[in-house]
Amino acid sequence: MKCIVLEGAAGLDNLKLIERDIPRPGPGQILIRMKAASLNYRDLINVTMGIYKLPFIPLSDGCGVVEEIGEGVTRVKAGDRVAPSFFQTWLSGRPEAHLLGSSLGGPIDGCLTEYMCLSQDGVSKVPDFLTDEQVATLPCAGLTAWRGLMEAGLKAGETVVVQGTGGVSIFALQFAKAAGATVIATSSSDEKLARAKALGADHLINYKATPEWAKEVRKITGGLGADHIVEVGGAGTFVQSLQATRIDGHISVIGVVGGFTQDIPIAAIFGGNLHIKGISVGSRAMFEDMCRAIAVNRIEPVVDRTLPFAEARAGFELMKGQGHFGKIALKIA
Amino acid sequence: MKCIVLEGAAGLDNLKLIERDIPRPGPGQILIRMKAASLNYRDLINVTMGIYKLPFIPLSDGCGVVEEIGEGVTRVKAGDRVAPSFFQTWLSGRPEAHLLGSSLGGPIDGCLTEYMCLSQDGVSKVPDFLTDEQVATLPCAGLTAWRGLMEAGLKAGETVVVQGTGGVSIFALQFAKAAGATVIATSSSDEKLARAKALGADHLINYKATPEWAKEVRKITGGLGADHIVEVGGAGTFVQSLQATRIDGHISVIGVVGGFTQDIPIAAIFGGNLHIKGISVGSRAMFEDMCRAIAVNRIEPVVDRTLPFAEARAGFELMKGQGHFGKIALKIA
Amino acid sequence: MKCIVLEGAAGLDNLKLIERDIPRPGPGQILIRMKAASLNYRDLINVTMGIYKLPFIPLSDGCGVVEEIGEGVTRVKAGDRVAPSFFQTWLSGRPEAHLLGSSLGGPIDGCLTEYMCLSQDGVSKVPDFLTDEQVATLPCAGLTAWRGLMEAGLKAGETVVVQGTGGVSIFALQFAKAAGATVIATSSSDEKLARAKALGADHLINYKATPEWAKEVRKITGGLGADHIVEVGGAGTFVQSLQATRIDGHISVIGVVGGFTQDIPIAAIFGGNLHIKGISVGSRAMFEDMCRAIAVNRIEPVVDRTLPFAEARAGFELMKGQGHFGKIALKIA
Amino acid sequence: MKCIVLEGAAGLDNLKLIERDIPRPGPGQILIRMKAASLNYRDLINVTMGIYKLPFIPLSDGCGVVEEIGEGVTRVKAGDRVAPSFFQTWLSGRPEAHLLGSSLGGPIDGCLTEYMCLSQDGVSKVPDFLTDEQVATLPCAGLTAWRGLMEAGLKAGETVVVQGTGGVSIFALQFAKAAGATVIATSSSDEKLARAKALGADHLINYKATPEWAKEVRKITGGLGADHIVEVGGAGTFVQSLQATRIDGHISVIGVVGGFTQDIPIAAIFGGNLHIKGISVGSRAMFEDMCRAIAVNRIEPVVDRTLPFAEARAGFELMKGQGHFGKIALKIA
Repeated sequence: MKCIVLEGAAGLDNLKLIERDIPRPGPGQILIRMKAASLNYRDLINVTMGIYKLPFIPLSDGCGVVEEIGEGVTRVKAGDRVAPSFFQTWLSGRPEAHLLGSSLGGPIDGCLTEYMCLSQDGVSKVPDFLTDEQVATLPCAGLTAWRGLMEAGLKAGETVVVQGTGGVSIFALQFAKAAGATVIATSSSDEKLARAKALGADHLINYKATPEWAKEVRKITGGLGADHIVEVGGAGTFVQSLQATRIDGHISVIGVVGGFTQDIPIAAIFGGNLHIKGISVGSRAMFEDMCRAIAVNRIEPVVDRTLPFAEARAGFELMKGQGHFGKIALKIA
Repeated sequence: MKCIVLEGAAGLDNLKLIERDIPRPGPGQILIRMKAASLNYRDLINVTMGIYKLPFIPLSDGCGVVEEIGEGVTRVKAGDRVAPSFFQTWLSGRPEAHLLGSSLGGPIDGCLTEYMCLSQDGVSKVPDFLTDEQVATLPCAGLTAWRGLMEAGLKAGETVVVQGTGGVSIFALQFAKAAGATVIATSSSDEKLARAKALGADHLINYKATPEWAKEVRKITGGLGADHIVEVGGAGTFVQSLQATRIDGHISVIGVVGGFTQDIPIAAIFGGNLHIKGISVGSRAMFEDMCRAIAVNRIEPVVDRTLPFAEARAGFELMKGQGHFGKIALKIA
Repeated sequence: MKCIVLEGAAGLDNLKLIERDIPRPGPGQILIRMKAASLNYRDLINVTMGIYKLPFIPLSDGCGVVEEIGEGVTRVKAGDRVAPSFFQTWLSGRPEAHLLGSSLGGPIDGCLTEYMCLSQDGVSKVPDFLTDEQVATLPCAGLTAWRGLMEAGLKAGETVVVQGTGGVSIFALQFAKAAGATVIATSSSDEKLARAKALGADHLINYKATPEWAKEVRKITGGLGADHIVEVGGAGTFVQSLQATRIDGHISVIGVVGGFTQDIPIAAIFGGNLHIKGISVGSRAMFEDMCRAIAVNRIEPVVDRTLPFAEARAGFELMKGQGHFGKIALKIA
Repeated sequence: MKCIVLEGAAGLDNLKLIERDIPRPGPGQILIRMKAASLNYRDLINVTMGIYKLPFIPLSDGCGVVEEIGEGVTRVKAGDRVAPSFFQTWLSGRPEAHLLGSSLGGPIDGCLTEYMCLSQDGVSKVPDFLTDEQVATLPCAGLTAWRGLMEAGLKAGETVVVQGTGGVSIFALQFAKAAGATVIATSSSDEKLARAKALGADHLINYKATPEWAKEVRKITGGLGADHIVEVGGAGTFVQSLQATRIDGHISVIGVVGGFTQDIPIAAIFGGNLHIKGISVGSRAMFEDMCRAIAVNRIEPVVDRTLPFAEARAGFELMKGQGHFGKIALKIA
């Protein structure tokens, strides 16, 4: 089989397409023929900054078909289409350090491969009406957006701000609309805002034209502020998020697109009685709840572009440029 | 002004249309010119069984326009369209005995009147796009359905069972759909089920044709059971609700349409790890959250029939017959 | 090894002490040398009513020492003292039907044995300062009480009613006191009430002398009612529990000591805005949280009496008589 | 009557002892003869930085006896001992901007006065066994600590870190112990740590001797981290709090003792799946729950020192020096 590994050192130059033997599923394991994968900003950081021990196969997110099952496997059968869980051992309940250490695409070999061998507990069946590429966007980006909104108890009628038009933000937009919320989308591009509107966004803010977007959110919400902000961590966004959130509102912190530390006015946190929740993906149970919501509401993940498997590197370059809208996928088979 | 009071003794025969002086708003109070009212099953019980001290003006639910404001009133101004709160003093937070004693239509004079004088704290502004009659259905029936679903943390993708096609059940159907849920509706009439379908119900069960509706719910949900049942208390429904609910699922108990006591298999409660929550309407804060969700999702309350104010008695007779679908309203002005 | 099985038919007469080969731990499994076990009312029902397929080894609750570990075992090592989980596969998160089917003492062979072979995932380490018999009371009775109080969000200062002096009730008393609550204990025996007082109960009600104990609870709480009732299901207790609970209060339904169905006034549920939660034991994560609370607060489970392993039948007879206070244990080794 | 006002400009020099007429209670109001008050760090900031419009009477926290009631007052009667609510209009439910604007000691005249006239809704009765000075410590410092722990769902057995030995921290220590938690206290003074130990602290960290106190918390908790940190905002504490908290743990942000902004590693928030909750005091309902917990558990607020009313300025100087342990009180009558 073919797979792409990060070898020797961090950096896009060190992604190598190699051949390995197809693994065999042991007891409780399954062999998956991978069909598609997708890229996350986390993958870009992992590959360019070398966070995990090398070599490893990048990409947490994919979709495949069960090719063979090992002894004692009952959760799935050959022919089932599945997605691997981002955290292979976080099945349900609270996160714990040892569960969070089981992520694919580092430290565990990920989806940039023709075949994967995983525990039967590490995969879930996925909605039929989605393409392989669409399924491949769910395990990290989809689940992160879902969990952020759900853990904050999103209710119909509330207002959600999504920042930019990356994968998590677009999922948050779609999930929030399915749940009956009002969505305010921000972007530096009017063209992207137009696409966000087509997906249901109720209010649009071009933060290049309106750098103080928090004030605009206050205006749109009649002074109240947003009930919920999905904070992807763009440069300086956190401080404005604190200003844009209603008293007792929620900020889901899901990323560091704009840098690793930010100078935070602490008084805004307690003055606003804010709930700030760090979200790193989620459990298999959450994933399955999300898939049900996707099926019931016929939500179609937005795949901006699909590249062939072998052009993974080009995908990473695209992601770096931040010119995409939604997700970048790779076709494996 | 004209109003209808229950005088002398319980019973529909004792509803009397009388004249009273228009009250004047004291400090912190407002005078409301009533435009519409609506009937609830609770009103029927109050009038026919005489639960509160006589005489009183029946009906908790209405809609009117602020005609005059007393000294110090700031929450509303003359000309604002408002709905009175079911519980006049339950503004927010947990219910408490003394707050629950402040209900309109008994013990406090209700909406079957041309003018009402209430505390400014006892009303809320309402969505513009609704008719007066539609607004008049919200304070009890709408809010009960809303709170039942929200307190159980309804999430997109979950399955909700609504029983019959009375006011609360139809609101629950509409709110559940707005929140991205799957809805199973039950009724003894195929015609009513067809109307439920037109409102978005995903699955229909005629419980005359299929008396063991709980089994049908299990079948529809692939064996899992419903995440949530809005239990209106029809004869024998509670026991089937216990059977139809998924492990760790929710039953919102909101009424006693079918009788005041039921023989309950206790083991089903703990075997199922069920959450059973008694819901008696809700607070003003919940009402305002609901109104926001109604506005965002353009939800139109279903008014089955509107009668003139003076024909309130005919409305009660209609309700008794249980032939209605959604709400019965009265036009006052 | 020796073990006691229920064979042929339900009934205490069919408990047989037999010999079997000591099992060997497979991959991921551990062999436990059992030291003690304890009896629950559920075990009595299982044995006398034959709920599970025969033959099986009764008793869900025990304590033992790891004797040998299978390949790949990392959670425990030989020499560790552990308690098996009541539900062998419910590790964390929500209960699900398939997890709740994994209970010990039926359908899975239980603790009335000298040796058990279990998955490493099916046991937890236990606090050092407890005796083997004390540990053996935790998996079902302790955890049921713990989960009931915790899921209802028990807070310091709240009032908890515990009914009678069986295992779960005494644990609820001890956990509630550790959490800073006021405890009202009921019993038909002044002597038992005196023992409850010695364990920290703040108020005592002899329900023989005061059959309307709900009224007494109202009086003690200044009219408010109890925040929380741990409902063990004694004859007719449910109806009084509904009356004794404060508006918006909690009833944890954990058993059926007094019969399998009860006639319930539905209006009391919604009039009181009550939360009724069915509790069937809990997950391993909850068990480990409970053990931590036991260790921090030095809570000693109350063992009423310890009988030799071979006299299990006498233990069941004792339980039937309901004369015990706290738990009945068996010494195995 | 005598009262102390901040006049002309911010600064301790501008606190003036003046005479004013005793106010008269209007309808729904009560006149309170103040007995004691206490100082909070917030008061020091208000007075020295001039956050509110001048002149105003400082201090949010006090205790007094109802001297006279206005027309229609039913919540209290003459002779009742009460504490004013920090937020006069936040009775229950969620915080909202307009409720949070009703704080005493700025913008509304506070407790540094012999008499206050407040709405009957703005006070609560208080536990009998406390001294006036002890009661005077509850409205802000006590309630902040209580709400922080309760909103995070503190459970018996969990570990709480309290930072330093100011008022909120000592209350958090006492409430956490009453709730069955383990407490780790930090301070720069071994003498203060000894006093914390006497109040029940289980583990002590002198952060002068052990500047990396987060590592020490990890060690004490066997690597897990603390379940809960009450973050008072000392210089640089926030970053260590992020490191000391367990995965999925809670940080209650209650103050800015160490400065108004901090440079925060965003990745630690989502990597840790942390819950960060801003806490600004609480509602009257929370206050009354807290008082009940204080009464049930006989918790005695720690008053470090009591000065005469007229020496308020000296109290502020003491607070500035941060040499106190627990609360600084003023005796008014």
